[in-house]
Amino acid sequence: MAPPAQMCLVNNGDSINAAAVRMVMKEAAPPHSASLLDADEFRRLGHQVIDFIAYYAGMGSYPVHPSVTPGFLRRALPADAPSRPAEHDAFAAALRDVRDHILPGLTHWQSPRHFAHFPASSSTAAALGEALTDGINVVPFTWAASPAATELEMVVTDWLGKALHLPESLLFCGGGGGTLLGTSCEAILCALVTARERKLAEIGSKRIGDLVVYCSDQTHFALRKAIPTHRDRMFALSPADLGAAMRADADAGLVPLFLCATIGTTQTSVDPVRELCAVVAAHGAWSHVDAVYAGSALVCPEFRHLADGAEAVDSFSMNAHKWLLANTDCLRQPALLVAGLGTEQEYILKDAAAEGHDIVDYKDWSVTLTRRFRALKLWLVLRCYGVEGLRDHVRSHVRMAAAFENMVRADERFEVVTVRQFSLVCFRLRPLPEKLGSEKEANELNRRLLEEVNGTRSGPYMRSAKVGGIYMLRCAVGSTLTEERHVTEAWRVVQDRAAELLGKMEITNGVVA
Amino acid sequence: MAPPAQMCLVNNGDSINAAAVRMVMKEAAPPHSASLLDADEFRRLGHQVIDFIAYYAGMGSYPVHPSVTPGFLRRALPADAPSRPAEHDAFAAALRDVRDHILPGLTHWQSPRHFAHFPASSSTAAALGEALTDGINVVPFTWAASPAATELEMVVTDWLGKALHLPESLLFCGGGGGTLLGTSCEAILCALVTARERKLAEIGSKRIGDLVVYCSDQTHFALRKAIPTHRDRMFALSPADLGAAMRADADAGLVPLFLCATIGTTQTSVDPVRELCAVVAAHGAWSHVDAVYAGSALVCPEFRHLADGAEAVDSFSMNAHKWLLANTDCLRQPALLVAGLGTEQEYILKDAAAEGHDIVDYKDWSVTLTRRFRALKLWLVLRCYGVEGLRDHVRSHVRMAAAFENMVRADERFEVVTVRQFSLVCFRLRPLPEKLGSEKEANELNRRLLEEVNGTRSGPYMRSAKVGGIYMLRCAVGSTLTEERHVTEAWRVVQDRAAELLGKMEITNGVVA
Repeated sequence: MAPPAQMCLVNNGDSINAAAVRMVMKEAAPPHSASLLDADEFRRLGHQVIDFIAYYAGMGSYPVHPSVTPGFLRRALPADAPSRPAEHDAFAAALRDVRDHILPGLTHWQSPRHFAHFPASSSTAAALGEALTDGINVVPFTWAASPAATELEMVVTDWLGKALHLPESLLFCGGGGGTLLGTSCEAILCALVTARERKLAEIGSKRIGDLVVYCSDQTHFALRKAIPTHRDRMFALSPADLGAAMRADADAGLVPLFLCATIGTTQTSVDPVRELCAVVAAHGAWSHVDAVYAGSALVCPEFRHLADGAEAVDSFSMNAHKWLLANTDCLRQPALLVAGLGTEQEYILKDAAAEGHDIVDYKDWSVTLTRRFRALKLWLVLRCYGVEGLRDHVRSHVRMAAAFENMVRADERFEVVTVRQFSLVCFRLRPLPEKLGSEKEANELNRRLLEEVNGTRSGPYMRSAKVGGIYMLRCAVGSTLTEERHVTEAWRVVQDRAAELLGKMEITNGVVA
Repeated sequence: MAPPAQMCLVNNGDSINAAAVRMVMKEAAPPHSASLLDADEFRRLGHQVIDFIAYYAGMGSYPVHPSVTPGFLRRALPADAPSRPAEHDAFAAALRDVRDHILPGLTHWQSPRHFAHFPASSSTAAALGEALTDGINVVPFTWAASPAATELEMVVTDWLGKALHLPESLLFCGGGGGTLLGTSCEAILCALVTARERKLAEIGSKRIGDLVVYCSDQTHFALRKAIPTHRDRMFALSPADLGAAMRADADAGLVPLFLCATIGTTQTSVDPVRELCAVVAAHGAWSHVDAVYAGSALVCPEFRHLADGAEAVDSFSMNAHKWLLANTDCLRQPALLVAGLGTEQEYILKDAAAEGHDIVDYKDWSVTLTRRFRALKLWLVLRCYGVEGLRDHVRSHVRMAAAFENMVRADERFEVVTVRQFSLVCFRLRPLPEKLGSEKEANELNRRLLEEVNGTRSGPYMRSAKVGGIYMLRCAVGSTLTEERHVTEAWRVVQDRAAELLGKMEITNGVVA
């Protein structure tokens, strides 16, 4: 069955063109206890789901972002779960609900025209790796609880660390080691707790109130208090500013605890790792590098220098699910100490088989006990595409972003606000003093531009950022399905909307109406 | 293709009987950038993966727990990821690796003879729901980031809350609300942070060092300091003991902050929620109920009384992935306040569409920003099986556990240590004073019994617990594939191993050799 060349996904909550999906909705026996995990039933329904996803992946010209209002789905669905499903084939009926009620209300992150936030790149190997993981469904919280799952996680974190050119001190092969957590918030939390325990062991737990954590105002959401950055340093954290803050705190009797430096903020600024680590080391604090988005770019030797100095960091985290084809819920690589997080109890006591061996129980590497077999997916991605395949992928997005950047630069009405380093372009309509008067008006104009761009039904979907008082549009290239034509077309839509907006302003005498 | 009636999965690292899997390994084109997410390629490989999982689910007589030693897989795999996969069809080669190297080293949680830890129950709807989630791959961290995903999460947490007979005050329909997090550790952490912020707002943040958290020594790992429980109360937390502890702390100038009560500990004790909440309320502290395992049983009216008094709790969490057919990474239901965890920044500012509406941005309900579309899976499970289907499932396991319990009770060499409430039986060989002398020897004997039971290649796989100084074997019935014959056979293996062990002891004059 070939995918429909085009499909009609209406966003007003009405049903989408149903013909294509109907093909995969065959008859099924009603589920009953004995068939909850029956192999034949699984195979039959599984093929339907695969066809359904393939159909979804084949969509091209639907709106990326739905025009729905809050409550649309809650009103459409019953207030209670069914007692017994009414339908003969409840699974097929459920797939119809997905098609008619759920898909039309999603923001389609896999769309080639999704340029918002950061990408959630997917791939066939990742999506099927996930399906395989869930089919096997083991819980490797200790080595014994599923030995191959723990060992595969050790193998792939080393594989990935090497592919990213990370120092061996962070890898198992160099005495460190990595783990796969759900999100970077969790990774930072783990590093923070470990740093705290290390410091309190040194200075006594009574001084917990004196500990100070540092980051720039561009750091990940998980951390809130911040040292300001400035446009003239491209919003990177200044080692001098950090040093001054740490000295002042130490003089006031406080204890510098933790620095979170970032490689690739939401505006893709890159903090100078080597210089910052030197400042941190002087105060005996913990240095963590958060490379959630841009860490993926380290697979390419041309980006390797951005992690210079990483051999001095205590921990490092990145997301394979943002840009390395390994869809959501994949990867971090912190070299954590078990001391801060370990548990030991009879219920999960080490196996006899493990006695005398230096094993890894990943439950001690995170805040969670239950965990998924995440390594299988990442292994499949690395195994099937290879490091060179990932490089090709990253480079193709960087190329497309560079092309978009060049188009922005060639239009004098626009400016690129921060230097593009990866595949994200932050840009805006220039403030025109003679027309707009102030930054505030420029911000308002760009806010309206984004609204217009996203209001184009077959157009791109972008989001904004506000840094140093400047409102900018963000074009984040990163969907696996994005091709050059999507980028070119996205820019054309931006130009058209801008022309229309500026035209209207001229009529109303330069005042944003 | 019918699943192989039987397969041979050898645990020594050698390849398993390959004929069946080979059938699903067809030729494939080499992956290249353009085909990373190609619909046809996805469909072709997807069908292979579904057949592979169906084959895995159809396995019956393989060892549940592998006899491997640490390092077995790391030694078998290359030290680096491939640069370019050597094979023409890398995906098929990877599936062969799964079959030959990874499956033989897993502990098979889905085996009908897996009675260890707590179950990780799966079902066709859940596993395929997960596959569907990963195929769609959206990131609903705000309402706008994928509206239908957020709304479906609101719908299913209400559905589930009602199915569990929870008070409406914890549901959206009653002014509360639920969210789906990765693990219960995360749920407890969120509740704890929220409780802390609420209390510090009241007493001032300088007193952070005075806050005290309470739980029993049977509480979940996420919490460590504990009030002792005793066998005569079936290891439930005593309200009198809690009250005394809180009073003593308050008298000493400390501030009672948080109680974590448990419905169904690892030994399935149940804390008296109503009485404990009354104690907590008197001190203005936060009460959280952790019903990670036994929360699933609340779908059955006959277990509903265990949550009596829950209308007074501040938050509640449970796992659908343990016993409600919704495999790993599914559900908690805390009614959290956003205050402690919320973030607000231009980058993820509310959509125009959401303005003026009281929307839920789930990023503010957890420690993580990135999150999966977890609601789809749980919705599929509830939609396809219905509340009655879940009841059938829970009751069938409770019946099997009761049968196991009766068999234990009928053998006077054994005793059931804690009263069985759900589908977990904690039992041991009785200490025989005239032969064994002490509890310590009884513990050693039971430890050896477990080793013998788990050493039976085609036998059951159980784990142990040690509570109040008593080492006990845990038979946790909960695999979706478990039938009565597996339970009967498991008991026969236990009896046989016990007879052999006791026989050896008689020969050596009552001393454990």
